[in-house]
Amino acid sequence: MSFQDVLEEVLADISAYRGQGKVAGYIPALAKVDGQKLGIAAVLSDGRSYAAGDADEAFSIQSLSYVFALALALEHHKSALWNHVGREPAGSPVNSIIQLEMEKGRPRNPLTAAGSLVVCDQLIGRRAPDEALDELLAFLRRCAADEAIAVDETLAMSESHAGALNRSLANFIAAFGNLNNPVEDVLSFYFRQCSIAMTCRQLARAALFLAFDGTDPVSGEAATIPSRSRRINALMLTAGHYDNSGDFAFRVGLPGKSAVSGAILAIAPGHGAVCVWSPGLNAAGTSLAGAVALERLVERTGWSVFV
Amino acid sequence: MSFQDVLEEVLADISAYRGQGKVAGYIPALAKVDGQKLGIAAVLSDGRSYAAGDADEAFSIQSLSYVFALALALEHHKSALWNHVGREPAGSPVNSIIQLEMEKGRPRNPLTAAGSLVVCDQLIGRRAPDEALDELLAFLRRCAADEAIAVDETLAMSESHAGALNRSLANFIAAFGNLNNPVEDVLSFYFRQCSIAMTCRQLARAALFLAFDGTDPVSGEAATIPSRSRRINALMLTAGHYDNSGDFAFRVGLPGKSAVSGAILAIAPGHGAVCVWSPGLNAAGTSLAGAVALERLVERTGWSVFV
Amino acid sequence: MSFQDVLEEVLADISAYRGQGKVAGYIPALAKVDGQKLGIAAVLSDGRSYAAGDADEAFSIQSLSYVFALALALEHHKSALWNHVGREPAGSPVNSIIQLEMEKGRPRNPLTAAGSLVVCDQLIGRRAPDEALDELLAFLRRCAADEAIAVDETLAMSESHAGALNRSLANFIAAFGNLNNPVEDVLSFYFRQCSIAMTCRQLARAALFLAFDGTDPVSGEAATIPSRSRRINALMLTAGHYDNSGDFAFRVGLPGKSAVSGAILAIAPGHGAVCVWSPGLNAAGTSLAGAVALERLVERTGWSVFV
Amino acid sequence: MSFQDVLEEVLADISAYRGQGKVAGYIPALAKVDGQKLGIAAVLSDGRSYAAGDADEAFSIQSLSYVFALALALEHHKSALWNHVGREPAGSPVNSIIQLEMEKGRPRNPLTAAGSLVVCDQLIGRRAPDEALDELLAFLRRCAADEAIAVDETLAMSESHAGALNRSLANFIAAFGNLNNPVEDVLSFYFRQCSIAMTCRQLARAALFLAFDGTDPVSGEAATIPSRSRRINALMLTAGHYDNSGDFAFRVGLPGKSAVSGAILAIAPGHGAVCVWSPGLNAAGTSLAGAVALERLVERTGWSVFV
Repeated sequence: MSFQDVLEEVLADISAYRGQGKVAGYIPALAKVDGQKLGIAAVLSDGRSYAAGDADEAFSIQSLSYVFALALALEHHKSALWNHVGREPAGSPVNSIIQLEMEKGRPRNPLTAAGSLVVCDQLIGRRAPDEALDELLAFLRRCAADEAIAVDETLAMSESHAGALNRSLANFIAAFGNLNNPVEDVLSFYFRQCSIAMTCRQLARAALFLAFDGTDPVSGEAATIPSRSRRINALMLTAGHYDNSGDFAFRVGLPGKSAVSGAILAIAPGHGAVCVWSPGLNAAGTSLAGAVALERLVERTGWSVFV
Repeated sequence: MSFQDVLEEVLADISAYRGQGKVAGYIPALAKVDGQKLGIAAVLSDGRSYAAGDADEAFSIQSLSYVFALALALEHHKSALWNHVGREPAGSPVNSIIQLEMEKGRPRNPLTAAGSLVVCDQLIGRRAPDEALDELLAFLRRCAADEAIAVDETLAMSESHAGALNRSLANFIAAFGNLNNPVEDVLSFYFRQCSIAMTCRQLARAALFLAFDGTDPVSGEAATIPSRSRRINALMLTAGHYDNSGDFAFRVGLPGKSAVSGAILAIAPGHGAVCVWSPGLNAAGTSLAGAVALERLVERTGWSVFV
Repeated sequence: MSFQDVLEEVLADISAYRGQGKVAGYIPALAKVDGQKLGIAAVLSDGRSYAAGDADEAFSIQSLSYVFALALALEHHKSALWNHVGREPAGSPVNSIIQLEMEKGRPRNPLTAAGSLVVCDQLIGRRAPDEALDELLAFLRRCAADEAIAVDETLAMSESHAGALNRSLANFIAAFGNLNNPVEDVLSFYFRQCSIAMTCRQLARAALFLAFDGTDPVSGEAATIPSRSRRINALMLTAGHYDNSGDFAFRVGLPGKSAVSGAILAIAPGHGAVCVWSPGLNAAGTSLAGAVALERLVERTGWSVFV
Repeated sequence: MSFQDVLEEVLADISAYRGQGKVAGYIPALAKVDGQKLGIAAVLSDGRSYAAGDADEAFSIQSLSYVFALALALEHHKSALWNHVGREPAGSPVNSIIQLEMEKGRPRNPLTAAGSLVVCDQLIGRRAPDEALDELLAFLRRCAADEAIAVDETLAMSESHAGALNRSLANFIAAFGNLNNPVEDVLSFYFRQCSIAMTCRQLARAALFLAFDGTDPVSGEAATIPSRSRRINALMLTAGHYDNSGDFAFRVGLPGKSAVSGAILAIAPGHGAVCVWSPGLNAAGTSLAGAVALERLVERTGWSVFV
């Protein structure tokens, strides 16, 4: 059976889940997305991409951006980044501020909203926020081999307008002295990284380097060094899905990152990268049909890292 | 270089860490263990074992027992076990009771003390506690291919005597109706499973099935089915080291379980199982030298699941 | 209008609340109490008692005992008691263990279950628990001028049998080294103090000294010194009703203590003491009709301390 | 002994505490206040004021403003205000955001920063923030019988500049839908109410109505109705001093409110109002010397509400 057939069977398998779950509704631009959308794309070691369903429709990448911003920030700051953010799973719901207080403004890991705000601040560094964003976009375009990737600026403004909770988190972190840049600069960067529009196919391609120790297996270009690539995968496995990370590791067995737009990015080390998109979310805020699709895909491919 | 040489080099590499950290002191029997002890053992796919340092000296396995009790309880109850315990990382220090209250007596995962108490209760089922313990010992002896494994009953009594915190956790869970057996029966089982005495070599051998999808590669006997074996590994990776689990995944990149006696068990899927023992603990309660040893071992073998 | 008329009007006023709320059901002996019971008694400065409804029917005093045990423990240990327990309101539901962990086993105040366990331990001191209990009973009998007051031992055994949550709290405190006596000794004392059977009339009489700076206005006998009496009142006002203390102060404006049996004891400084009993509890675990009765009584008498 | 002599003796008594504690340093304007300052003023039922030390030196009233804004908001919204804010003590340090999350954006009481932000929002209502602030200033001037009271606008700007924590709280509350006005409007009002400059003498005079059931005993003018006045006192007694409220009730026995500028306002029901000012704070953020002064004053006057 061809890999294309596998993807199509996976989508057929999970058709009963299509449209289930709750589409994120905190801003109109997300709420109006069609809950029936369902797409999957995978890119394997030879760089060839396979796709099924709505895999070429763009959506906002939301917290999938955390992974790429983290990779870049680690290039800039190396292990000094960990002075500002931890690497333990959160053990609490999305965006909880409780642990942030108990741990004095140092977020638990870079794959929570609070943690990504700190990563954004570090990535901005002493530059203008726009310059840092240009770097992030250039990185994504290079990894995805696609120059068309851009920020949906209208969405970014909506995110900012509805961003009271993230604004609260950023000010809270600032109150503990853990932001170097002005809070609104960091937030502006953050809302724009979340509003980058990409397709499943672009995302799977962009993340391919994480399946091959940091080096794009097609171009041979190193996005990062092996140890750093492995560590990003480790963070995705332990903390990539809010308070659903344990369950995702348990059921799927791959490093991954979930986003509120219904996308899940998964890395199959040594094999390739996969992105699935279905806007309906489960109670923990990760794509309901998307997680089932990845579970089925791993059953058929044997890609679990725990074999 | 032979694998034996690798183990010996690892021990040589980390000699500066020998004796560092703090030996657990909550009971005299643990406190008097020599902090200079340092052993490592690995068993590979052919069942052959390699060892260096104090790898044949017995110590109490403490919370390493959680892994084996979990495997057995899953055989008895299958997915119904998850009605009683979750599978998310805790995001809080060892033995924290805070989340237990917030989540109404359902522990976050089976690899915390609270979670293991629930697993013990389920494993006892409707049997006498002794009968269940006999099953656990038989399981360990069969997996380790060593009939000499036994409970250190004197230690178990000391554990019970000093067990106010675990007694508090067990009563707290019982107050929420999540224990079927009398609290003291569950505690008695729990303290005895923690007081089983084993060596690094025995532990690595006993855990070998987890590196091979649940089946002992030597005997060909299935201890559990593949999906369950992978899931136990997933739990070890996300939650095997208290509030140090993210850091261990980040640095070592293998499923593992740390114990307060200074032992760490690690699974290299497809390769083998490793156990390291060094009594000095870091601030999060895991073996300081042990974690460094595993980090070095993975650097030399490339066993990270995140490659 | 005579004071007797006032009490009777108060009971008439609140007849619509009789039987409302939820009778505590964690042990059969409490669950079977008739929810229609409603009694009130007040004792004024001349020692004369006024009563209406079921004011002469005995019930278990439960956490009203905390007040008297505290008064005695302060006589024994004076301000050294505060090394073991704080005096801040809890800001959390009944029996929450969360703060106990955050504050390392030192309960927030002596009018929570955790705090009273510490008070019990201190009151026992180096004596046999029975000797300390005899002292508490003698104190209650002397204050109430009634030798008939006794422990309902059958109830105490039921409380112990159903006491997993208190057993958890006590072991948790012990784990932090904040109990001097064996946990089960402290619990035995605790369950027995809670199982003392008294009537509204006896309780109002027994607490009269707190309305007169520590001295019984009839006998002239000092139960405690003025500053200590005022401080017990302050603790009752800020922390006497679990997480309903602020609301009680807001609505009633008197120092008081609520118990799970549906009793509320209130002190009107300079005027007298009141006890009301109605088993139906509100969501915060205090007597629903009882609190309304006290609100009405204070409206009619002007006894608020905040005038 | 005249009351003037009492005040002077109190100041003499506590001279050893003058300059102790830590002056609040989160903004330069507060940090540069002379820690040796010490003033006390009391106004009794005839409206006559007594003062000693630096009682006529103005300072920013900070959270003492909460009390007056609450009184006004209750006039506007009556009991509907309690839909937006609770009335239980917080049981946690100043400005903790933990409970705010656990209770879904409804602050525990109106005398915390979070609670006052909600009160400010309600007091603004559908008006321009400036109009509401004018009302608050007019209220303070009328109560204090002093037209000179004004906002220190330079300080308000500094407060806003250093206001990350309050900005975090306000955005957090807004994220739960518990603010009607734009966050920055509410914050602007909040920082300006905190920056009102007054003296001990003015503050004691302004709060006199709370000692007399809501009516100014000199002018006979009602600032509020008796039940509301008593309830404000109840809130001050249970929650007026952050996580030091229980201790203040225990030691002083009067309704009061502490501010980070080192001021404490205390109400002696039926007697008068007192304000003490000493910038050095204890660990809980209340004036160290100020609390001792009030303790001594109550010992000399017998004004405790718990007699």
